[in-house]
Amino acid sequence: MNTSDTSPATMPVVRLIPKAEARAIRHGFPWVYANELVTDRRTRNLAPGTIAMLEDANRVPMGIVAVTPASKIICRMLDQDPEAVIDQAWFAARLTRALAHRARLYDAPFYRLVHAESDGLPGVVIDRFGDVAVVQPNAAWADVLIAPLVAALAEVTGVTTVIMNGTGRARTLEGLEEKTEIVLGTAPEGPIPVPMNGAIYMADVMGGQKTGLFFDQRPNHAFAAGLAKDARVLDVFSHVGGFGLAALAGGAASALAVDGSAPALELAAQGAAAMGASDRFETRKGDAFDVLAALAEEGANFDVVVCDPPAFAPTRNAAEAGLRAYERVARLAAPLVTEGGYLVLCSCSHAADLTKFRNASARGIGRAGRRGQIIYTGFAGPDHPQLPHLAESGYLKVVVFRL
Amino acid sequence: MNTSDTSPATMPVVRLIPKAEARAIRHGFPWVYANELVTDRRTRNLAPGTIAMLEDANRVPMGIVAVTPASKIICRMLDQDPEAVIDQAWFAARLTRALAHRARLYDAPFYRLVHAESDGLPGVVIDRFGDVAVVQPNAAWADVLIAPLVAALAEVTGVTTVIMNGTGRARTLEGLEEKTEIVLGTAPEGPIPVPMNGAIYMADVMGGQKTGLFFDQRPNHAFAAGLAKDARVLDVFSHVGGFGLAALAGGAASALAVDGSAPALELAAQGAAAMGASDRFETRKGDAFDVLAALAEEGANFDVVVCDPPAFAPTRNAAEAGLRAYERVARLAAPLVTEGGYLVLCSCSHAADLTKFRNASARGIGRAGRRGQIIYTGFAGPDHPQLPHLAESGYLKVVVFRL
Repeated sequence: MNTSDTSPATMPVVRLIPKAEARAIRHGFPWVYANELVTDRRTRNLAPGTIAMLEDANRVPMGIVAVTPASKIICRMLDQDPEAVIDQAWFAARLTRALAHRARLYDAPFYRLVHAESDGLPGVVIDRFGDVAVVQPNAAWADVLIAPLVAALAEVTGVTTVIMNGTGRARTLEGLEEKTEIVLGTAPEGPIPVPMNGAIYMADVMGGQKTGLFFDQRPNHAFAAGLAKDARVLDVFSHVGGFGLAALAGGAASALAVDGSAPALELAAQGAAAMGASDRFETRKGDAFDVLAALAEEGANFDVVVCDPPAFAPTRNAAEAGLRAYERVARLAAPLVTEGGYLVLCSCSHAADLTKFRNASARGIGRAGRRGQIIYTGFAGPDHPQLPHLAESGYLKVVVFRL
Repeated sequence: MNTSDTSPATMPVVRLIPKAEARAIRHGFPWVYANELVTDRRTRNLAPGTIAMLEDANRVPMGIVAVTPASKIICRMLDQDPEAVIDQAWFAARLTRALAHRARLYDAPFYRLVHAESDGLPGVVIDRFGDVAVVQPNAAWADVLIAPLVAALAEVTGVTTVIMNGTGRARTLEGLEEKTEIVLGTAPEGPIPVPMNGAIYMADVMGGQKTGLFFDQRPNHAFAAGLAKDARVLDVFSHVGGFGLAALAGGAASALAVDGSAPALELAAQGAAAMGASDRFETRKGDAFDVLAALAEEGANFDVVVCDPPAFAPTRNAAEAGLRAYERVARLAAPLVTEGGYLVLCSCSHAADLTKFRNASARGIGRAGRRGQIIYTGFAGPDHPQLPHLAESGYLKVVVFRL
């Protein structure tokens, strides 16, 4: 079967079972779960990423979907127009709409250009670093149709290099292999300097964690930077310096970045150097929990302490343990905050909702013998839109306490 | 009884019943409910706002509270130190701490200086407009101790005029009368120009709604202003021009402010004039629902539409009707938004939580035949801190959809 055949006439057809949530899908819910689809042998044998026509139980066409028979999310809605043809022009239309939003939001072309389902390209994440785009095709259909996608991306944005970053848990769930390769142009020489909130970040788009930089924290970096004037700032789980470099741009007296990754800290130091702020910037490599404990023993304190850990509760099963880890972060970090200072706590765990994360954080602060007011609650930036149907699952939460 | 006697030796004592939530109070919960206190005749006869010693059921002192026998919130914790004396120096310490936070956040002295419980002054709201402060003593104890409070306020901030704004529902619940008066200095001559997000607002601190200006929307105004470059903006329920003037400061091509209050619109127009933006600013007086319908009939459309209505669901009883009203706002506003444009929807209802408000808004957009991505969720600004124990009750929510 030719999985890139997207002509409606010859397209495979998949069908909802009678009890499926057809109404939700008609109203924009972008997924069909495996238990909602008639999975006869023909459907089970479709190649991952096959473009198909979705029909309801009464054989009425509902739209064009991408099918991955082995995935729990068996269909992803691409277009509710059953006549839609998923070709370069189709991609270009989606990308043009996504670009208009980012161009309005940001002065410089450094942002998440496509945030998957919310931008009408299910499972596809595209981050833009000036003339370079990094595509994460986290659903099989985008692997299959990578050629028209990349052609449209170059056409619409003018980027000259496109990197396909095929790593991460989402691809495993789709049964996709891991691979990272240049699909257009040539690899950038060294890290790309990314201007954000007045800071400069060094993004290693070929070798870095995810796409080398997280754009999602931009508004939260900006908020923390607004607290940082003349402050001594501690940035734990700093990655390439997210909060720490933003704090330096906001006038921090000093920033200490802590991370377990030497390459990430080296990029952070390069960013500080590019900002002319090396004299205010230090790094310390080590396990974050160990370093927090060590700093407390040293009697260190800071006006602003930030903890932006990896997802401690990535799945429902890990939720309880994850919340305990967030509580522990708060308990270890709170003693390092001066009286009247600020504690910035982040979670990028789907399974820890805002209330649970906030309560775990407040509990940790309490166990450290401190009290806090909540002065800010933030989420991922506006280049990370959400569908209302999936809004509960917003993964990134930031709560800022004044102690 | 001398209700301003705050000397521990002669202070009245009130006592928790054995089943009261003593633990929560010890951990910072600021209230004692009437059903948690031994309300013998002596306690029932205390004058509203009496300063008293709170003891647990075992007669162990828990702190200094303000008692209003007729209120559901019968005690408000003032200080967990049973030795504390509630005098001018005590107020000055609370105000100094509150001021340090605002001075760090803002370049100019225009902000909410005290946000009640969260700033350690239960029931007391103080907004600052440069040299003028407006105090809302929404709990009886602050009426009783207004003199040392105002003296401390002048001492700590240097304000020369203090207005006591004794209006609003909260005072009624405390059994307090309505009154607005100058308690220090002289009344300002005319409205006060307030710089915020690059805009200028005219605040009528003597005659206006609440304190004449809402500082809580500052970060949300800023976000909307970031969408407004060259945009045609509609600001419904504009009050003195909150979102509309911020949009003009953000480079909007035009802003149309709609409100039912002619004085509010007049102040908005004065603000636009002070910004030199009168040529881009229009107002329309009328019922917001009527005007939204009329604009649709006229075929009008806008790149950004903002609806910031009064609390439709101020109480639990009004929650259902309130959510229907929010849905109706979204349904009437969505058709006025251009394709790819933005709809900014606000709720300041305690009883409509974020999820319910977001869902009502999405439903209204859907009923208008439109679809939206959520690009932003915002709350009150950081000069409106919250206690973690009361964080669920955060009243202000703003959700921005791209349609």
